[in-house]
Amino acid sequence: MARFTKKKRDEIGRPPDELFFRGEKKIASVRLKIIDFDASNYEEVKLSKTKEVIKYRDSNSVTWFNIDGLHNADALKNIAMTFKLDNLILADVMDTQARPKVHNYDNCVALSIKMLRQDETSYEITVENLSIILTKSVLLSFQERDGDVFDPVRERIRNEKRRIRKSGTDYLMYALLDIVIDNYIFIISNLGEKIEDLEDELLDNPSRDILENINSLKKELNFLRKNINPAKEMILALSKIESDFINEASLVHFKELVGNIDQAIESSDSYREILSDQLNIYHTTISSKLNDVMKLLTVFSVIFIPLTFIAGIYGTNFDFVPELKYKYSYFVMWGVMFFLTLAMLFYFKKRKWL
Amino acid sequence: MARFTKKKRDEIGRPPDELFFRGEKKIASVRLKIIDFDASNYEEVKLSKTKEVIKYRDSNSVTWFNIDGLHNADALKNIAMTFKLDNLILADVMDTQARPKVHNYDNCVALSIKMLRQDETSYEITVENLSIILTKSVLLSFQERDGDVFDPVRERIRNEKRRIRKSGTDYLMYALLDIVIDNYIFIISNLGEKIEDLEDELLDNPSRDILENINSLKKELNFLRKNINPAKEMILALSKIESDFINEASLVHFKELVGNIDQAIESSDSYREILSDQLNIYHTTISSKLNDVMKLLTVFSVIFIPLTFIAGIYGTNFDFVPELKYKYSYFVMWGVMFFLTLAMLFYFKKRKWL
Amino acid sequence: MARFTKKKRDEIGRPPDELFFRGEKKIASVRLKIIDFDASNYEEVKLSKTKEVIKYRDSNSVTWFNIDGLHNADALKNIAMTFKLDNLILADVMDTQARPKVHNYDNCVALSIKMLRQDETSYEITVENLSIILTKSVLLSFQERDGDVFDPVRERIRNEKRRIRKSGTDYLMYALLDIVIDNYIFIISNLGEKIEDLEDELLDNPSRDILENINSLKKELNFLRKNINPAKEMILALSKIESDFINEASLVHFKELVGNIDQAIESSDSYREILSDQLNIYHTTISSKLNDVMKLLTVFSVIFIPLTFIAGIYGTNFDFVPELKYKYSYFVMWGVMFFLTLAMLFYFKKRKWL
Amino acid sequence: MARFTKKKRDEIGRPPDELFFRGEKKIASVRLKIIDFDASNYEEVKLSKTKEVIKYRDSNSVTWFNIDGLHNADALKNIAMTFKLDNLILADVMDTQARPKVHNYDNCVALSIKMLRQDETSYEITVENLSIILTKSVLLSFQERDGDVFDPVRERIRNEKRRIRKSGTDYLMYALLDIVIDNYIFIISNLGEKIEDLEDELLDNPSRDILENINSLKKELNFLRKNINPAKEMILALSKIESDFINEASLVHFKELVGNIDQAIESSDSYREILSDQLNIYHTTISSKLNDVMKLLTVFSVIFIPLTFIAGIYGTNFDFVPELKYKYSYFVMWGVMFFLTLAMLFYFKKRKWL
Amino acid sequence: MARFTKKKRDEIGRPPDELFFRGEKKIASVRLKIIDFDASNYEEVKLSKTKEVIKYRDSNSVTWFNIDGLHNADALKNIAMTFKLDNLILADVMDTQARPKVHNYDNCVALSIKMLRQDETSYEITVENLSIILTKSVLLSFQERDGDVFDPVRERIRNEKRRIRKSGTDYLMYALLDIVIDNYIFIISNLGEKIEDLEDELLDNPSRDILENINSLKKELNFLRKNINPAKEMILALSKIESDFINEASLVHFKELVGNIDQAIESSDSYREILSDQLNIYHTTISSKLNDVMKLLTVFSVIFIPLTFIAGIYGTNFDFVPELKYKYSYFVMWGVMFFLTLAMLFYFKKRKWL
Repeated sequence: MARFTKKKRDEIGRPPDELFFRGEKKIASVRLKIIDFDASNYEEVKLSKTKEVIKYRDSNSVTWFNIDGLHNADALKNIAMTFKLDNLILADVMDTQARPKVHNYDNCVALSIKMLRQDETSYEITVENLSIILTKSVLLSFQERDGDVFDPVRERIRNEKRRIRKSGTDYLMYALLDIVIDNYIFIISNLGEKIEDLEDELLDNPSRDILENINSLKKELNFLRKNINPAKEMILALSKIESDFINEASLVHFKELVGNIDQAIESSDSYREILSDQLNIYHTTISSKLNDVMKLLTVFSVIFIPLTFIAGIYGTNFDFVPELKYKYSYFVMWGVMFFLTLAMLFYFKKRKWL
Repeated sequence: MARFTKKKRDEIGRPPDELFFRGEKKIASVRLKIIDFDASNYEEVKLSKTKEVIKYRDSNSVTWFNIDGLHNADALKNIAMTFKLDNLILADVMDTQARPKVHNYDNCVALSIKMLRQDETSYEITVENLSIILTKSVLLSFQERDGDVFDPVRERIRNEKRRIRKSGTDYLMYALLDIVIDNYIFIISNLGEKIEDLEDELLDNPSRDILENINSLKKELNFLRKNINPAKEMILALSKIESDFINEASLVHFKELVGNIDQAIESSDSYREILSDQLNIYHTTISSKLNDVMKLLTVFSVIFIPLTFIAGIYGTNFDFVPELKYKYSYFVMWGVMFFLTLAMLFYFKKRKWL
Repeated sequence: MARFTKKKRDEIGRPPDELFFRGEKKIASVRLKIIDFDASNYEEVKLSKTKEVIKYRDSNSVTWFNIDGLHNADALKNIAMTFKLDNLILADVMDTQARPKVHNYDNCVALSIKMLRQDETSYEITVENLSIILTKSVLLSFQERDGDVFDPVRERIRNEKRRIRKSGTDYLMYALLDIVIDNYIFIISNLGEKIEDLEDELLDNPSRDILENINSLKKELNFLRKNINPAKEMILALSKIESDFINEASLVHFKELVGNIDQAIESSDSYREILSDQLNIYHTTISSKLNDVMKLLTVFSVIFIPLTFIAGIYGTNFDFVPELKYKYSYFVMWGVMFFLTLAMLFYFKKRKWL
Repeated sequence: MARFTKKKRDEIGRPPDELFFRGEKKIASVRLKIIDFDASNYEEVKLSKTKEVIKYRDSNSVTWFNIDGLHNADALKNIAMTFKLDNLILADVMDTQARPKVHNYDNCVALSIKMLRQDETSYEITVENLSIILTKSVLLSFQERDGDVFDPVRERIRNEKRRIRKSGTDYLMYALLDIVIDNYIFIISNLGEKIEDLEDELLDNPSRDILENINSLKKELNFLRKNINPAKEMILALSKIESDFINEASLVHFKELVGNIDQAIESSDSYREILSDQLNIYHTTISSKLNDVMKLLTVFSVIFIPLTFIAGIYGTNFDFVPELKYKYSYFVMWGVMFFLTLAMLFYFKKRKWL
Repeated sequence: MARFTKKKRDEIGRPPDELFFRGEKKIASVRLKIIDFDASNYEEVKLSKTKEVIKYRDSNSVTWFNIDGLHNADALKNIAMTFKLDNLILADVMDTQARPKVHNYDNCVALSIKMLRQDETSYEITVENLSIILTKSVLLSFQERDGDVFDPVRERIRNEKRRIRKSGTDYLMYALLDIVIDNYIFIISNLGEKIEDLEDELLDNPSRDILENINSLKKELNFLRKNINPAKEMILALSKIESDFINEASLVHFKELVGNIDQAIESSDSYREILSDQLNIYHTTISSKLNDVMKLLTVFSVIFIPLTFIAGIYGTNFDFVPELKYKYSYFVMWGVMFFLTLAMLFYFKKRKWL
């Protein structure tokens, strides 16, 4: 599982508008993809140079311009110039460690959010900073590497009949954020399934493995919460934004997203409580089992210790031990031992140890 | 007990207005029931086709149109067309996993809430998403299966003298929500009874069964809380709604509901604390019992270990052990052992172990 | 101790204005008492019929009309008609399980609160729903049974010089609520005294009884909190109410009540923390004592086990054991044992076990 | 340590304006002290009768009138009459158990706060209710006993050059409150020092004494928190008060006090967490030490139990035990035992028990 | 690690405008440094007297006046006079124990914040109170000792092309605060790395060292939180300040700081939870290991105790023990013992102890 990323010493004190890439380089070179569409036309293009985007900038169609790879400051500077974006905006895009936030600029709306993705086969969760810049007719999305969770949106765009083909960039942004948050819920519910599966073994067979599982699920949940929870604030701000690029109808959709992220957070809160409860139950079960172990040892010891003592007494080699001479001593000893054992068993029965 | 429902991969990225059924199919076919009434008339009808509802749509009487089964998108589409409802509304109705919410549309008020029901004989709790759409003269209620908690309301409607017969759809909606929340309180108080019953055995006989009970009650309570708590927000929004379909007098009733749901939530919070306390008490009792067990073992061991050692000494076969020859050695040994035992008992008495 | 009251199945879905008694019948028949006073006159009367109250309704004096017993719907209906009260108000009065609340009606102010009373001899705590309806010149108080906490107020009314004789119904209501809340504080501080008394035995002698005490005090405190905490909201609303029946000067007093109920809640919060701390300390003390027990056992065992083993070796009956023949073997054995014991004691001393 | 004060039965239901002393009498007779000053003059006087204060009432100088002892209702009544104070105000002064509060009356500002004082030699903490009544030219301060924390203020007043000599009663009030809150911080930081001192022994030598210390520090901190935390609300209200007796410049000082009390509360919160952590660490260390103890016992037992068993076998007196006859049996037995011991040690080494 | 600083008795009751140094003297003499710059010029000067600063006071360039050492009241008084600052402001600067705060004065904005610094080689964290006073053209920064975290800002100032050269004192203040907060995040993430490193050993080898590590990391985190969390309030107030010395553009930057400090606080909250979880896991692992130890002891004891008892029986020296005479008795005994052992092993196997 990915660890929390660290702040490094050389990342301190950078000016806010410096195009400094903060994060790990996750892709060799920057990749640029264009999806351009309106109600009747649809086009998908890979660009080789950032300048080529200029022809889409002023068209009337909706253009989704996706940039994979944030480590190349020059490429981003070109994009900034093409769309007349302030350096501050691009510097934010390159700071992949920042908290999710939304800013309302004069010529665009810029936001960032963590995109979580779970591999379909390895179940590994990857986290990546997604930045979106929204202008009238172009939506720019910035990702740290190729591969994302947006295929269902692309599918919908390709389908001529979908509402998305008739809507603007704001609706496209909604669709993207919706998918990001749906993935939050999806990943949390997958984790939750694993958590609930622990239940069955918890009381019956509290092995060390379960403890390890609880521990690693706790860490994973912590990791998810740290990435998901701060997004709430951003989504809430977005749902109240006043911008020329976002119309009333889209605001309604953004308000829906608040409910969705609430659901994600509530789920993760629930699972966190459940994990804490499980750890408590585990610990208590362990203590209870220890009790059983010790009862067994004590019952055995308390019964046999006096018996062994008696046998020891008559194993002494004193010249004069009167009982040794008596013919039935041996049987009397057995009798006494039998009686003592019965008494002990009765005592333990009464105290409900047996 | 029902588990939290999961988000599946193919549920991600659906457009917000797609009539996609999210949930389990719990009923074979859609069933439509009409209760139509005003102060003087009363009629109960089962419809076979959704189109038949049209004659009630514009009548002056109050019509309660109940739809059981949400998996049939076509049936819902027909209903949407009949009542001129936006696709978004019906898509929400079909998303049985969504959080409770209320929306104020131009031509209707739409809300959803989780309906909890406890079987009278098996005591099993089922959860189901209830959606209500309120227009001037028709209230549409959507449920996932047949069977609900609304019989007392139907009873009241049948009774000509009841206030409900003289009131509008808003009062009918209040009556339905009131029953849903009353059932929350009812189910929580049933669960609470089970929780309080644990008390008696907790200190006397902390068996593993009690631990299992505490654990399963915790899970059940968690499940209830997850379904009930999010409803608070919706009810609060409802109590402040401004809509042509809801008059002032009904708002007063909705405000009462806020108090009721608060009571439900406070109860569940109380029981949650009690369960945590019980687990703590259980664990502490277990530790305290272990102490008793170990004290017994230690007292026995500490008394007998030196005695057995002494007997062992005189069981050695050395050719020359002076004490063995002495006639009263055996009795002296018994005396020493007796004195040692007394000393030990005195010591344990002083340390309050006995 | 009283348990939380349950919601029963037949209490679900009642219309809000139905005069349905929810609770236990705690008194055989309804009792009606009148205290009527102004600055110069004072009268105390028991009524046999509800209708007799009518002569007080429109008098200029202040009338305190106390009704004990809420199970008789007819009696309440008569009262409602006499004072022209909405059925909703009386239905609320009869719902003894409701949360504390205050409503500002056109012709009255109605509120309810839990009245806690501690018996002077048995120390038992009883809880009862108190409803107050305030009109210009009459204050109606509804209780579930006879006996209440209001004697000091009656005393003050009987005393001609008291301010209460010159004040209106609003001041009377303040006086009643003040006493109810004073009793909260009184009962909590009594409970607190018991909690603090536990302290002394907690560390010295952590017996099972203390655990039982902690547990039962926890439950009692829980019970108090559940009854007291929801009153805060009501008192707060009351301190901001705008009503013709309550003048500015009384609002100042109501504001004082907010401080008082805060004090009650803060006290109960403190005691809750203290109880949790005590349980923790108890558990830790138990563990620490177990450590002592096990150290004792281990020290004894570790010292004697090797000695007993040595004795056992020389108790074997092999034909040829060279040491047995040697004259001083026995004494050498004692020497070795003595040395071993010393070494062990030194070891335990060094590890601070002794 | 002082316990939380109790509410007694006869304190319930008192009218709000009754001059009833609630608390313990801590001083034999009431003492009256006057400090009167302006920029150029300074006078310190002990009064024998309350009436003598009248000459200071209307002077232009600033008068600080300190009253020690609150149990004498007559004396307070005289003061009330002299300054034309409502009975309600004096009744509040006499209620030493009330929560800190501030009231803005027409002719004065009245407030109360808990004054904590730590004896310089015995380190004992005493708590006392301090009431302050502020008028244009007189500040009345009411304390339960003589002795207070205000000497530094008196020192400053005596010094002609200090700002306090040129300021009004509001600045004097600020100076007094500032000292009260400084004492909060002082006492908490003293307590904190004791808490931090526990650290060193916590892990090395978790004796029962440390547990007792943690427990008693917890109680002391609880006591402080209960007295300090409610003051925040009062100070906050004070910093926003609008009164003729308090000018803008003093409000700025009052705002500083909010920061100071926040610091006190944050410190006590920190120390509370630290104490909880310490208890946890203590408990865990205890468990970990128990583990060591049990490992030692187990290692010893597991090694010697089989050896002693073998010796026991050859100590039996059967007529026919073939091994006994064999000449080297005894040495073979030693060999086997040696090997067994080695095997055991190896096993424990591998499991990291040694 | 630095401890929380204490409030001393002689620090109580100081007037708010007294220039009293509260804290430890950390530097021998006061050092004064000037960095003066505008878009084209740059100058770095060390002053020997506070008066020399006067030539910078009214220049048009931006002047950063850094003062190291706060214990010299005279030096500060000179500065106050030069810049016509109220004594209150300088008194605040000298109170190094105060909470972070910001004040908006007529002729300046004054704020204070804790500056945390981690030594690059020893990793030791030092805390220091930083005060900043902002006027139109001069920024005064006060530190307790020389050495700070501001070198990257100085670097940027030296570089002619940087935005900071063209901006005012408000942007300079932003740059300084940004670095202070970046250091918070940096230090927390370093601590976090240590916390995460504990994980690996936690379950495998829960030694006492890990407990010590958890404890000391808890204390360190506590220390950081106590210094960092109160800064949030100040930064928030700063982001909403209305002052002539701060322009709109800088307010945008201050708002960014709110996000940064939130990130710091959220990180520290996460790590606090993780540490608590680790302690829980540690304790539970310890209990689970104890279980293993006790199982081993019990299995061994329960198997061998009866065997040893049997051997003891036939070691008795009674004259008449029939079994002893029988030739195969010895072998029968072995057989019985073998069978008993098998039975025991089977029993333990069934209970999953082996």
